[in-house]
Amino acid sequence: MPSISQRSANVPLSPFRKLVPFADAAKRNGTHVYHLNIGQPDIHSPSAAWDALRKHQGKILAYTPAIGNLSYRQKLATYYDQYQMRVKPQDIIVTTGASEAIQFLLFATLNPGDEMIIPEPFYANYNGFCSMAGVTIQPVTSRIEDGFPLPSITEFEQKINARTKAIFITNPSNPTGSFYRKEDLEALRQLVIAHDLFLFVDEVYREFCYDDNTFYSSLSLEGVDDHVVVIDSVSKRYSACGARIGALVTRNPNLKEAITRYAKVRISAPGLGQLFAEAILDQEEGYLTAVKEEYDRRRMLVYNRLKAMPGVVNYKPGGAFYCFAKFPVESAEHFCRWLLESFNYRGSTVMLSPGTGFYASADRGTDEVRIAYVLCLDDLEKAMDCLEKALAAYPGKALVDTRNQMIDLQE
Amino acid sequence: MPSISQRSANVPLSPFRKLVPFADAAKRNGTHVYHLNIGQPDIHSPSAAWDALRKHQGKILAYTPAIGNLSYRQKLATYYDQYQMRVKPQDIIVTTGASEAIQFLLFATLNPGDEMIIPEPFYANYNGFCSMAGVTIQPVTSRIEDGFPLPSITEFEQKINARTKAIFITNPSNPTGSFYRKEDLEALRQLVIAHDLFLFVDEVYREFCYDDNTFYSSLSLEGVDDHVVVIDSVSKRYSACGARIGALVTRNPNLKEAITRYAKVRISAPGLGQLFAEAILDQEEGYLTAVKEEYDRRRMLVYNRLKAMPGVVNYKPGGAFYCFAKFPVESAEHFCRWLLESFNYRGSTVMLSPGTGFYASADRGTDEVRIAYVLCLDDLEKAMDCLEKALAAYPGKALVDTRNQMIDLQE
Repeated sequence: MPSISQRSANVPLSPFRKLVPFADAAKRNGTHVYHLNIGQPDIHSPSAAWDALRKHQGKILAYTPAIGNLSYRQKLATYYDQYQMRVKPQDIIVTTGASEAIQFLLFATLNPGDEMIIPEPFYANYNGFCSMAGVTIQPVTSRIEDGFPLPSITEFEQKINARTKAIFITNPSNPTGSFYRKEDLEALRQLVIAHDLFLFVDEVYREFCYDDNTFYSSLSLEGVDDHVVVIDSVSKRYSACGARIGALVTRNPNLKEAITRYAKVRISAPGLGQLFAEAILDQEEGYLTAVKEEYDRRRMLVYNRLKAMPGVVNYKPGGAFYCFAKFPVESAEHFCRWLLESFNYRGSTVMLSPGTGFYASADRGTDEVRIAYVLCLDDLEKAMDCLEKALAAYPGKALVDTRNQMIDLQE
Repeated sequence: MPSISQRSANVPLSPFRKLVPFADAAKRNGTHVYHLNIGQPDIHSPSAAWDALRKHQGKILAYTPAIGNLSYRQKLATYYDQYQMRVKPQDIIVTTGASEAIQFLLFATLNPGDEMIIPEPFYANYNGFCSMAGVTIQPVTSRIEDGFPLPSITEFEQKINARTKAIFITNPSNPTGSFYRKEDLEALRQLVIAHDLFLFVDEVYREFCYDDNTFYSSLSLEGVDDHVVVIDSVSKRYSACGARIGALVTRNPNLKEAITRYAKVRISAPGLGQLFAEAILDQEEGYLTAVKEEYDRRRMLVYNRLKAMPGVVNYKPGGAFYCFAKFPVESAEHFCRWLLESFNYRGSTVMLSPGTGFYASADRGTDEVRIAYVLCLDDLEKAMDCLEKALAAYPGKALVDTRNQMIDLQE
C-alpha cells in the first residue's frame, strides 16, 4: 500500500470536532446534546437571500471571475464604508470562506519555515492552515484571569526574529470573545512599521461588539496600507456558514497580485454563495441590529450563569459569540468527554470545546473550555443547568475511566 | 513594505487566463471574441437543479459535514454504480470543485520534494496546485502527430525514482481530448503495483466519450483499491462550474482519514452547490445524453474544419470537449495574441489557449493551441471561419510587433 504523506499526520484535528463521535454515541443513546462546541448559529440567514435564490432566473451556473463578481465586490466596498475602511472593489478578493482567504494569504506572504505571531488562545484551524503552508506559529499568551486582553507589545517583540513575517489577530476574537480597542491596533501599527511586518486581522465578527465597544477596523489605520490585510466572511454575520463566501481585503498592490495568482489556480469562488451574499447587501435592513441584540442577551445569560458556578473563572466577553471558562477540573478534555459519555441531566447534556486545542504552547488551557453561545436563550439556560449540575457531579480531578459510572440526574 | 513570498512568484498563470487583458481590449474596441480558450460551456445547467433552488425552504445556510452531506454522497455512489466503480458513500469526500480535491490529494499523499508523473500536455492549473504543495511534476510527453495517446509504460518507468509517489492522468483528457482505453488503465495498474505508487485519475469528463469509446473507470480496476483515487466534479458534466462541487473517491482507508483531516480544517464544502448537485441526481433524465450528442456534433465540426486548414495538424479527439491543433506558425502564443490585438473577420475574432502552458518540458507546444469546443454550432462555425482567415492572413513566422498592422477582413 502506498503510504500517505508525513505532513498529513501533523494536521491537528479541531478541538470542536474531535469529540463528535462521543456526541453521536450520546445521541444514539437518547441523550439530547446542546451543541456549544462549534460556531454554527441557530439564527436564520436573512430572508432576502433566500428570496433571491427563489427568484433567480439562472440558466448556466458558470465560473465567476477569479477574484469574485464585480457587482458583489462593489456592494461589499460600500458595506465597508460604514466602518471607514476606505476600500475599493479592486482591493477585495472574494474567497471560498475565510478559510481559503487565510490559506491564500499564508502562501502569498510567507515561505516555508517563516513565522507568524498569534495571540493565544486562537482559532484552532489556524494550525491546519499553517501546517499546509509550512508556516510556524509563535504564540504570545493571553490569560483568562485578565479577560484575554491583547498581550503587551513587549511580548510580541520578544517573539520577533529574522523569519517573522506577520502578526495575526482576530478582532473580536474567536475563541475568547476579546475585543481589541483602537489603542491596541495603534500599538500594533507602530510595531509592524518598526519591524516591516504584515498585520493580518480576521474581522469576521466585527458586527458583534457589545457594551460601549465600537469596532475599529485595521484598514482604518493610517500609513500601513501595505501592511494590513483583513480577512472577512459572511458566515457569522449572516448565519450563512454554508455559503462559503469570504474575502481578502488589502491595499498592497503586490500582495493583491500574488493572491490573485492563487485565486486563478482554482478559477472561481462559489457562484451561488456570491449570489446569496450579494442579495443580503442589496436588501438587508435591521437584520444585524436584531441579531446583535440577541447575541448580547445570550452573552449576558452565559456570563451570569458561569459567574454563579462555584470554582469557575470567567469574564464578560466584549465581542463575537464565544467565551472561555476555567473549570475546577484537572482535565477539561476529560470533563468534556465525560459530559458526553457518562452524564445527563433530565435527558440532556452539553458539548463544549476543550481549551488546549486553542493554544500552541504546551500545557496551556488544560482546565479551560470554549463556549459558543449559538443557541436560543431557552436552550442556553437548559445547557447552563446541565453544566452546573455536571460540575457538581463530576467525580473529581482524578483521570479515571468513568464510563461505567453513568450519572443520570433526573431530579 | 513587507515583501510577498518567493513561492507566490512561482505560481504560473493559466494559459487560458493570461491573454484575458487582450481579449478585454478587443471587446472594448468593438470586436466580438469567440471564447474557445476556457472550458466554460454555453450549455444550460439541468433545470431540475434550478427548480430545486427555487423550491428550497431553507432557513439557515449552515455548514455541511466536512466530507459532504450524506444524502448527496449516497446518490453520488448510486450514480457511480452505472460505471461499475464499486463505491460506497463513505468512500466519497465532497470538495470545493475538483480544484480542492487535487489540493487535498497532493497534501495527503506527497511530501514537499516528492514527485508525480503526468503525461503532458496536461491541465495547466496542475502546476499551481503542485507549486502550493511543493511537489515536482515529472512529465512524460505525448505527441499531437499520434493523437496524444498514453505514453508507453517504459516512458513512465524511466521517470520513476525514490521520490516518485504517484501517477496522475486525466481520462478523458483535458487539454487533448484523448481517451484512455481499458488496456491503458490495466497497464498502469500493473505499473503502480510494481512500484507501489498511487494512481490519481481525474475523471471529470467521463460522460463525454465519443465513437465506440466506452468509459472505463480506474476504480473498476482489480487489486488496486489502496492505489486508486478518482477526482470528480459536477462542473463539466452538468455545466455547473460555479457550483464548486467536486469529490475525491478512494477505498484506501488511511488516505480517506488523511483527506478528512484537511477537509475538517476548512469545515465544509459549499452548501448551496451540494443542494444543486443533489437535485440533479434526484431528477436528471436524458440531460447527459443530449449534452453528449451536442458536444459530439461540435467535435466533428471543429475536427473537420481544422483538417481542411492548410498546414494545420490535428486529430479526432476521443472524449471531453477539447482538442489540440498544431499551426504553421513559429509561436502560437504570438499568434493567439495577434488574433486579439490585430485581427478581425467580419467584426469578430477567436480566443485560443497557447500550447506551451500545458507542457512542463521546455520548448514543447510552441506551435500548438488548445481549443475548447464549448460554443454552439453556429458560433463554432463562425469561429472556425475566423481562424481559417486568420491563419491565411497572419504575417508569418517572424515575431515582429504587428499591433500597428491591424488586419480587418470585412469581405
